[in-house]
Amino acid sequence: LIMSEEYCTNVLRCLCVDIINKAKSGHPGMPLGMAPIAEVLWTKYLKFNPKNPKWINRDRFVLSNGHGSSLLYALLHLAGFNLSMDDLKQFRQLKSKTPGHPERLETEGVEVTTGPLGQGIANAVGMAMMEENLRARFNQPGFPLIDHFTYAFCGDGCLMEGVAQEAISLAGHLKLGKLILFYDDNGITIDGSTKLAYSDDVPAKLSACGWHTIVIPECDTDFEAITHAIEEAQKETRKPSIICCRTTIGYASVLAGTAKVHGTPLGPENAVALKKTLGLDESKTFFVPDEVRAEFSKKGELGMEQEKEWQAMFEKYTAAFPELSKKLLELQCFPTLDMSILPRYVPADEKKATRQLSQTCLNAIAPHMEGLIGGSADLTPSNNTAVKIFKTFSETERDGRYIHFGIREHGMLAICNGMQAYADGIVPYCGTFLNFVAYGLGALRMSALSHHHLIIVGTHDSIGVGEDGPTHQPVETLMTLRSMPNVLTFRPADGNETSGCYYQAIVHTKSPSVICLTRQALPQLEGSAPEKVKFGAYTVFESSPEPKIVLAATGSEVSLCVDAAKVMQDSIPVRVVSMPCWEIFDMQDAEYKKSVFPRGACVLGVEAACVAGWERYAHAVIGMHSYGVSAPAEVAMEHFGFTVENVTEKAKKLVEHFAEKEVPDLLDRIF
Amino acid sequence: LIMSEEYCTNVLRCLCVDIINKAKSGHPGMPLGMAPIAEVLWTKYLKFNPKNPKWINRDRFVLSNGHGSSLLYALLHLAGFNLSMDDLKQFRQLKSKTPGHPERLETEGVEVTTGPLGQGIANAVGMAMMEENLRARFNQPGFPLIDHFTYAFCGDGCLMEGVAQEAISLAGHLKLGKLILFYDDNGITIDGSTKLAYSDDVPAKLSACGWHTIVIPECDTDFEAITHAIEEAQKETRKPSIICCRTTIGYASVLAGTAKVHGTPLGPENAVALKKTLGLDESKTFFVPDEVRAEFSKKGELGMEQEKEWQAMFEKYTAAFPELSKKLLELQCFPTLDMSILPRYVPADEKKATRQLSQTCLNAIAPHMEGLIGGSADLTPSNNTAVKIFKTFSETERDGRYIHFGIREHGMLAICNGMQAYADGIVPYCGTFLNFVAYGLGALRMSALSHHHLIIVGTHDSIGVGEDGPTHQPVETLMTLRSMPNVLTFRPADGNETSGCYYQAIVHTKSPSVICLTRQALPQLEGSAPEKVKFGAYTVFESSPEPKIVLAATGSEVSLCVDAAKVMQDSIPVRVVSMPCWEIFDMQDAEYKKSVFPRGACVLGVEAACVAGWERYAHAVIGMHSYGVSAPAEVAMEHFGFTVENVTEKAKKLVEHFAEKEVPDLLDRIF
Ligand SMILES: [Ca+2]
Ligand SMILES: [Ca+2]
Repeated sequence: LIMSEEYCTNVLRCLCVDIINKAKSGHPGMPLGMAPIAEVLWTKYLKFNPKNPKWINRDRFVLSNGHGSSLLYALLHLAGFNLSMDDLKQFRQLKSKTPGHPERLETEGVEVTTGPLGQGIANAVGMAMMEENLRARFNQPGFPLIDHFTYAFCGDGCLMEGVAQEAISLAGHLKLGKLILFYDDNGITIDGSTKLAYSDDVPAKLSACGWHTIVIPECDTDFEAITHAIEEAQKETRKPSIICCRTTIGYASVLAGTAKVHGTPLGPENAVALKKTLGLDESKTFFVPDEVRAEFSKKGELGMEQEKEWQAMFEKYTAAFPELSKKLLELQCFPTLDMSILPRYVPADEKKATRQLSQTCLNAIAPHMEGLIGGSADLTPSNNTAVKIFKTFSETERDGRYIHFGIREHGMLAICNGMQAYADGIVPYCGTFLNFVAYGLGALRMSALSHHHLIIVGTHDSIGVGEDGPTHQPVETLMTLRSMPNVLTFRPADGNETSGCYYQAIVHTKSPSVICLTRQALPQLEGSAPEKVKFGAYTVFESSPEPKIVLAATGSEVSLCVDAAKVMQDSIPVRVVSMPCWEIFDMQDAEYKKSVFPRGACVLGVEAACVAGWERYAHAVIGMHSYGVSAPAEVAMEHFGFTVENVTEKAKKLVEHFAEKEVPDLLDRIF
Repeated sequence: LIMSEEYCTNVLRCLCVDIINKAKSGHPGMPLGMAPIAEVLWTKYLKFNPKNPKWINRDRFVLSNGHGSSLLYALLHLAGFNLSMDDLKQFRQLKSKTPGHPERLETEGVEVTTGPLGQGIANAVGMAMMEENLRARFNQPGFPLIDHFTYAFCGDGCLMEGVAQEAISLAGHLKLGKLILFYDDNGITIDGSTKLAYSDDVPAKLSACGWHTIVIPECDTDFEAITHAIEEAQKETRKPSIICCRTTIGYASVLAGTAKVHGTPLGPENAVALKKTLGLDESKTFFVPDEVRAEFSKKGELGMEQEKEWQAMFEKYTAAFPELSKKLLELQCFPTLDMSILPRYVPADEKKATRQLSQTCLNAIAPHMEGLIGGSADLTPSNNTAVKIFKTFSETERDGRYIHFGIREHGMLAICNGMQAYADGIVPYCGTFLNFVAYGLGALRMSALSHHHLIIVGTHDSIGVGEDGPTHQPVETLMTLRSMPNVLTFRPADGNETSGCYYQAIVHTKSPSVICLTRQALPQLEGSAPEKVKFGAYTVFESSPEPKIVLAATGSEVSLCVDAAKVMQDSIPVRVVSMPCWEIFDMQDAEYKKSVFPRGACVLGVEAACVAGWERYAHAVIGMHSYGVSAPAEVAMEHFGFTVENVTEKAKKLVEHFAEKEVPDLLDRIF
C-alpha cells in the first residue's frame, strides 16, 4: 500500500497543504484536486533532468493555473530539482525561491511565469510550436535530437480567457500533436459554481477547434484512467490533446467541492482532519516518507541517464552535421549581432516608411540569427513582417519560420513568450498595428516580468495612420509602454535609427522591445547613425553647440523638427534631439544627459502621441490631448499642429517665455 | 426586375464602391460580400425610426467588422437617417459624419464605434443582455414596451479575437435568444486564405457554446435563403443565433475572392467593370434609382408609425404604472446623484480597505440609480462588487442586475460598452483586479473614445496585494490609465474619498472611470471629504500654510504621508496633498493648482506605482522602478521604501537639496 499511487498522491496533497498553511497564504483547492494527475505525469511520463533543467530535449511542463504553485514547488522538490524543504517553508516570503505564483527567474524548473489566467495555455502552444519547428530543422535519420511532449495544467479560468481561446484555435489549426493539456474540470470558480457563468461543452468546443479530446469522469482516485488517458494523448500525434479531468476542488478536505477552498489556507485544524481522512499521520507536517520520495525521484534519475545518452548522440551528430550542431548550440545561447550587417542610409536615399525599413532589417538579420522566428497577427502586408528566406510554418512545413498568427494579438504575444522560453537563443518577433498591442498587454507584461526577449513590430504608430481614424490611431500607447518596467519602447526616425533600434532590441536580451513604426514615408536624416541609438537620445541637428532651445522628438516628428530648426536657426540657436528610446536614455549617466539637454536651454517636446510623460524632459510639448481623427494623414497631422509653422511658433513662444527667468532644470532630480 | 432584391443589392454595392473610390481609401471587399444580407435585413426586418435614432425599442444593429463602414453609411443614408449623399461623398475626410470606421458620436444611427476587431460582437451581447433585462423589469401584460432584436455583422477577424470568444461563451450561457449574429464567412483575411491560420468549425464551436447555428451555403445571390435564415433565427428564442453566410469578398469585382479587395479602393476602372458585370449603368456614380431608394426607406417609414404606436402605448403605460414609467424614462437620461446618499466618515471610524468602502458606495447608490447594473469577472468576493438588492441576472431571473461575467475581463469591458450604449442612463460597473484591467484595455479604449459611462472597480491596486506577488501587483497600470484620453483614474485614500470618487465617476457622464482600490485596510483621514474630490487634488493635512515641502500622494500612500508629515512637522513646514484624480486636477484653473502646489515648496510624490508621469507635479518621487515582490503586504511595502522613515528621510534630503537654489516651478507650462 505504502507505494501505491494513491498514497504518493496523498503525501503530495498534504505537503501542499502544509506549505500553504506555513505561509498562511495560498491556494489549496487546485493542488488537492490535481495531485493525482500530477503524480501520474511526474512519476511515469515527464522527461526531465533535475540537475540540468535547461536540457533542450526535456518535456515542457506549464502550470497555467499558476495559483496552484505549491503543487509545482512540491513536485520540483520531490523530483530532485534545486528546491529544498526549507525553500518550501519559505513559500510566499520575500526573496524566497517559492513566490506566490511560479516565476521562471526565481525557481529552477519553472518553465514560465504563470498566474494571470490563460497565459500558460498560450505559452505551452508556443513551446509545442518550437518543438515541431526544431524537430524539423535539426533531427536527422538516427538522430532524434528534439523529440518531447509539452504538457500543461489549466482550470476553468484559463479556458474562459480569450487569450487561451486564441491559442487553442491556432494550436488546433497547426495540428500540434505533441501538446497535451489537462483541464481541471472541478465545476468551481471563485464566484461559486461554474454554472453561474460557464456552459461551454469543452470537449465539443475543442473538438471543433481541431483538438483530440479525452474525458476522465472521475479523476480524484482513478489512476488507471489517468494513465490510460496520457498514453492515448501521446499516441494522437496529428492533433493537440485535451484531457478533461473531472476533479474535486479541495479533495478530501472539509471544504471539498466549494469555492472557499480555492484561495484560503485550510489552517492547522482542517489539515489534521484532511490527513486523518487520507490515512496519513496527522501529527506530522511536511512529511515525506523515503519510499514516496524515492518514487518521485525515479523519473529524475532516469532523466539524468537520458540526457547522458542524448549528449552522446549529440557528439556523434556534431561529427556528422557540424553546421547543424553549431546552430542548435547557438539557439541555446543569448544572441549577439554584428551591427555591420544592418543597412545604413545617407540623406540622398529614398524616403521610406519605417515599417518598410523594418522589413529590410528583418531580412538583413534573418540569415545571421538562427533564433529569429515570427510573424504577424494577419497584417503581414501592412506590418511588413515577411522575410524572404522564411517559409511559412505549417503542418506540412514544420521547418518554416514565418507564422501566420491569425487575428489573435493577445494569443500571439503569449505564444511568443512560450516560444522564447523554449531556449535562450530564440527571439520571436511579431507584428500588429501599434494600436492593437493594447489587446495583448496582459502578455507583454509577462514578457517584461519574465525577461522574455521578444521584438514587437508595432506599425501605424500615430495619427499618421490617416483615414482609418481614431479607432486605429494610437495616441496613448507610447506612454503605456514607457510606463511598463523592462519594456524597451523604440520609435526610430529614419533608416539608420531603425537599424540601430533593431540592434539594441537584439542585444538587450532580457527585455521585450516594441519598435514603433510609421505607415508614412520619412526622409533619411543627415545626423543619424545606427550606433547613436545606443544612447537612447542624441543631437541629430544643431545650429549652435549652445542652443537656446532644444526640439526633442521621436519617430516621424524628428524630421519635422529638423525642418523647423532650419527655419528658426537664423533667429534662435537651436538643437534637435532625436529620442528613439527613452528607457535607454534614462540609463545613461548624468553627464551625458546634460550634454544632450544643456542647462539653460528650454526644451520643446514634439511627438504625435499623448503629452503625458514628456514633463521628464520638456518644458512644453506639442502632442496629443485627445484621440485622433479620420482624415488623410497630412490633414490629420496639420489639424493637430504637427507642422513647421506651429513648431517654430511654439518654440519662439517658449523661448520668449523664459527670456526673463531661469529655465527650470528638469534633470535635477535627486531620486 | 428593377425592384428585385438583387437589383437593390447591386445598387447598394456600387454605392459603397463609389463612396470608397471618392475617398481613395476604404474597404470594398466586405460591402460587396455582405450587401445581400444587409439588403434583406434592412428592407424587411430591422425595426428603427430614422427620425428618432434613440427610440428605445428599436432593433439594435452593430457592424462589428467596422472596416465595412461604407456599407453602414450607405444603409443609413438610404433608410432615411440624417446622412446625406454629400455626407457619403465626404467619407474619411476631416470633420465629416462618415469617418473611416463607424463612430457613434459622429453619426446618427451608429449604435457603437467599431473597427477594432471582436469588440462589436461583445457590444451586441451587452445590448441583448440589456434588452432581456429591461424587458423583464418593465414589460407588463399588454405592454410589450421592450421587445426587439439585436443584430450584428462580423467577419473572420472578429471571430478569431479572444474578446469575441469570451462574449460568445457568455451569450450562450445566458441564452440570449434575441441576439442574431451574421458571420461573413468569405474564407479571406488580410494575409490571404483563412486556411493560413484558421481551421475552427465555426458552427460546431458556437453550438458547443450553446448557440443556435444556421449555415447559408451561398449568400451572394440567394436572397430566399437569407430571408429564411433570419426568420428561423428569430424563432429560436432560447439561444443566440449565428448565421454563417458563405459570401465572396469583393463579389463581382475583378478582385473577387482575393485578399487584395479587402482594404484597397477598386479605382474608377474596376468600378466601371463591376457596374457592367452587375448590369448597372457604368457611366453613373453615386447612383440610386428612386425605386431603390423607396424600397430602402419603407422600413424607416414603417418604423415612424411603429414608434407612434409605441408612444401611445407608453402613455397608457404611464397612467397604469407611473413608477415604472418614470424609471424607464430615467434610464434614457444621463444620471444625476445626490451626494448626501453617499457615506461619510470621521477619523474614529474603523480602518477599512477601500474595496470594502467601494461596496458600501455601490450599496448606497443602487436604490437611487435605475441604470446601475454590473458585476465582476469572477472576483465578486475579492472585488466586493455584490450589491444587496441585486439579484443575479440569469436565464431564469432576467430582471437581475448582478452579472457573473466569468473570467473574461476583455469580454466584460466590451459587453459593458454595449450595455451602456443601449441607453444614456445605463451605468455598468465591473470589477476585476486592477492588474487585469490590462487584459481589457482594448475595450476600455473604446469606452473612452465613445464616451461610454462605465465604472471599473479595480481592486488590489498595488504591491499592497502582498503574497500573490508581481504577477498580480499592478505597478504600471495607474500611468497607463492616466495616459488614455478621457479615462478618469481615481485612487481614493479613505472612505470619504471613495464616496467622492463614486460621485465624480457618476457625474462625469461622458467618461469611463477606473476606481483603484486597496486590498488592505486604511485609516479614515482627518482632512478628507467627499466634496473635495471634485478638485482632483487638495490639501489633506498641513503644519503650516506656507510649507517648504509638499508630500503628494494617492490612495494608500496618503495616510503614510500624513504619518510622515506629523513626524517631520516640528523641523520642516510640511503639507500633504491627496490626489485622488489627476485628470480632474489637471482640469482646474491655474490659480487653484498654485494654491495646492505653492511656488517655492518642493514636492515629493509618493505612490506605490511606477514613477513615470509624476514629473508633472513632483521634484522627486518615491515609487516603483520595477515589478513587485511576493511577500506579506507590509514586508513588500517596506522593501520598496513605503515607510514613514524613508518618506521623512527623502523629504529632508529634498529640502536640503533645494536649500541653496530655486525650486523649479513645475506648473509654469505655457502649453
Ligand atoms: Ca475551477
Ligand atoms: Ca474574412
